[in-house]
Amino acid sequence: MGAMAAPPDVIALLTDFGLKDHYVGVMKGVILGVNRNARIIDISHDIPTQGILDAYFLLSNTYSYFPEGTIFVAVVDPGVGTDRSIIAVQTGKHTFLAPDNGLLGFLEKDDAIRRIVQIKNRKYFLEPLSNTFHGRDIFAPVAGHLSLGTDLSLLGPEIGRMEKIAAPAPKVTREGVIVGEIVSVDHFGNLVTNIPGSRFAGSDTVEVRFGKHVIGRLATSYAEGKKGQILALVGSTGNLEISVNQGNARKKTGAKVGDGVRVVHRDK
Amino acid sequence: MGAMAAPPDVIALLTDFGLKDHYVGVMKGVILGVNRNARIIDISHDIPTQGILDAYFLLSNTYSYFPEGTIFVAVVDPGVGTDRSIIAVQTGKHTFLAPDNGLLGFLEKDDAIRRIVQIKNRKYFLEPLSNTFHGRDIFAPVAGHLSLGTDLSLLGPEIGRMEKIAAPAPKVTREGVIVGEIVSVDHFGNLVTNIPGSRFAGSDTVEVRFGKHVIGRLATSYAEGKKGQILALVGSTGNLEISVNQGNARKKTGAKVGDGVRVVHRDK
Amino acid sequence: MGAMAAPPDVIALLTDFGLKDHYVGVMKGVILGVNRNARIIDISHDIPTQGILDAYFLLSNTYSYFPEGTIFVAVVDPGVGTDRSIIAVQTGKHTFLAPDNGLLGFLEKDDAIRRIVQIKNRKYFLEPLSNTFHGRDIFAPVAGHLSLGTDLSLLGPEIGRMEKIAAPAPKVTREGVIVGEIVSVDHFGNLVTNIPGSRFAGSDTVEVRFGKHVIGRLATSYAEGKKGQILALVGSTGNLEISVNQGNARKKTGAKVGDGVRVVHRDK
Repeated sequence: MGAMAAPPDVIALLTDFGLKDHYVGVMKGVILGVNRNARIIDISHDIPTQGILDAYFLLSNTYSYFPEGTIFVAVVDPGVGTDRSIIAVQTGKHTFLAPDNGLLGFLEKDDAIRRIVQIKNRKYFLEPLSNTFHGRDIFAPVAGHLSLGTDLSLLGPEIGRMEKIAAPAPKVTREGVIVGEIVSVDHFGNLVTNIPGSRFAGSDTVEVRFGKHVIGRLATSYAEGKKGQILALVGSTGNLEISVNQGNARKKTGAKVGDGVRVVHRDK
Repeated sequence: MGAMAAPPDVIALLTDFGLKDHYVGVMKGVILGVNRNARIIDISHDIPTQGILDAYFLLSNTYSYFPEGTIFVAVVDPGVGTDRSIIAVQTGKHTFLAPDNGLLGFLEKDDAIRRIVQIKNRKYFLEPLSNTFHGRDIFAPVAGHLSLGTDLSLLGPEIGRMEKIAAPAPKVTREGVIVGEIVSVDHFGNLVTNIPGSRFAGSDTVEVRFGKHVIGRLATSYAEGKKGQILALVGSTGNLEISVNQGNARKKTGAKVGDGVRVVHRDK
Repeated sequence: MGAMAAPPDVIALLTDFGLKDHYVGVMKGVILGVNRNARIIDISHDIPTQGILDAYFLLSNTYSYFPEGTIFVAVVDPGVGTDRSIIAVQTGKHTFLAPDNGLLGFLEKDDAIRRIVQIKNRKYFLEPLSNTFHGRDIFAPVAGHLSLGTDLSLLGPEIGRMEKIAAPAPKVTREGVIVGEIVSVDHFGNLVTNIPGSRFAGSDTVEVRFGKHVIGRLATSYAEGKKGQILALVGSTGNLEISVNQGNARKKTGAKVGDGVRVVHRDK
């Protein structure tokens, strides 16, 4: 990094800690204790408890919008206190801290990884080190030090690979049907699938099927059609979404994460 | 603005996006990508879905407490992706970005508007521009540029007026009864009306009636009267509120937004 | 504080205001209006309504992790608008603002108090001063001024003591049984007690009893034992916690704040 580059002082937090307890606030206190100039941003703290895949999808839709040098701290960590590792992953633009439990697997898919380091140097941890709150005792102080420019190589040994998680991927049948599933349901009740819009972009002969519903054409905005109508469209993540005009698709359809969705060419 | 004036780097966000998804975090990432020194403040992200009037009342109670130069970004936008406009409104002290759907109508009432600009210059938008998440693709980068000092005139043409919304206003009957309604219910269950306290200030002969309740006098704090007693007082917004001492007026009375409230002189 | 010391510009907020209304956002606007360089951190705004003891325990587990000079603003204030005082308490490292209702009592236990000042100087308040929202009208502007370096002595008279609150403390019976209780339940359903782990540290002959449950040994992490197993361990606050491996102890046991917990030597 050149002498005039901005310091990597943006730290973006993603956890399943919720906001009612002191957990997130304490992490921020520890970060500011290491680097008072850190710019701390909350991505979300409402990941479902131990929802590694939820964090995987959410962060994969988020990170590219953050400035170069951003340090992402993702703590969804059912294995805290066991022998699971904590890793730092460096890409061309960003640094990611997370438990080595597959949460960062999307980076492999995006082919962006430059270096993976196992965080082991207790010099950068809080003492005493608890077995139950590594967000406070490891993630926060390490993020603080990274935001001061500490090189990853000081934090622990480079390792060749990280743990994988089985993230559901869409498949294409022999007949050309794209078979995917709902991977998240947002605040508005929109059902977000794992089917990239690029798979059927430009086609005006596709229809979307899920449960007992058949959606005959793709919409281009949530406000299309009549009030209460079920819509299929390529949403802001770039993936296929099921939505309801001025309504809530989760409530209207009862669909949930894991439910199948198919994109079919109408003449098949 | 003089050479020594503080840069307009405070950006205050108000949305109906909730906090569980990546939406708000992504907006902040985009803002910091444009202006790393922006000071981003959350007003609320829990506006009821598509609750334009809720945002109208909340922001009208908020903006005057923010420092000069603050840029308010209010995204409650059921029309995203349609031909609705996005506008920037400049007052003597602040700048407001919102969909042109009436959300900023309180500024007309407050007689504070200097300039209204329709945001059209795609140079300040993200590319590709989605149809479903203008918070990320338009509001955030435009706010970032405004916080760097970009003049409104570069964002699009000045327009003469903005869309209106029918915000409920109190009326006075021939007999001098003030007829208003509940326009919001806060976290504590306080029922906030649209009746300004200035309408009956100083009078000690008024009583407040709503539903089957008659409140014979005005309290001056939430702790007045007995535990569980229903109180009427002029709250921190300057408007009449119904409250319960150490309790929750919404739960105790079952009242909700839209319910009528009357202020009556006792001798009538 | 020496000439080169960092300004005390970190302000950490703890309230029972919730996040849906404008209350917290307005406080931040007022703070930035006084000191645009303040670094505002949220500890939590989801303290149960009027839960002074909840705030007491949460803040006592939090403050030591914040940098020197941090100004804590704790507004859980059922007495707002009455003759209750607002106090500022200075310790060797931090400053605390709160209503004088016992919320800061943990500081006496920690033997850390240097000075207590009653906040009375209206020069530092907003005008007009409401009876219902001192968070906005007193706490926020006073915190802003403190973050600029204003000395406590300018805010009001020094007083000798603050109000106390009866915080439940663990007792030891003649037989050596430690009798405590659950003082908070976190986002994950962990049941946090008021029994310090130091009371039984190193002993491998203790068992934990609560309700109809007997936990025969102490775990060292949440992931110990089998899925769904009830665990007792010393949590990140340093106190005894009841937890469930990959589960939710509150839901599994039905336990709640105030329920008794005993630590017994197995041979007794």
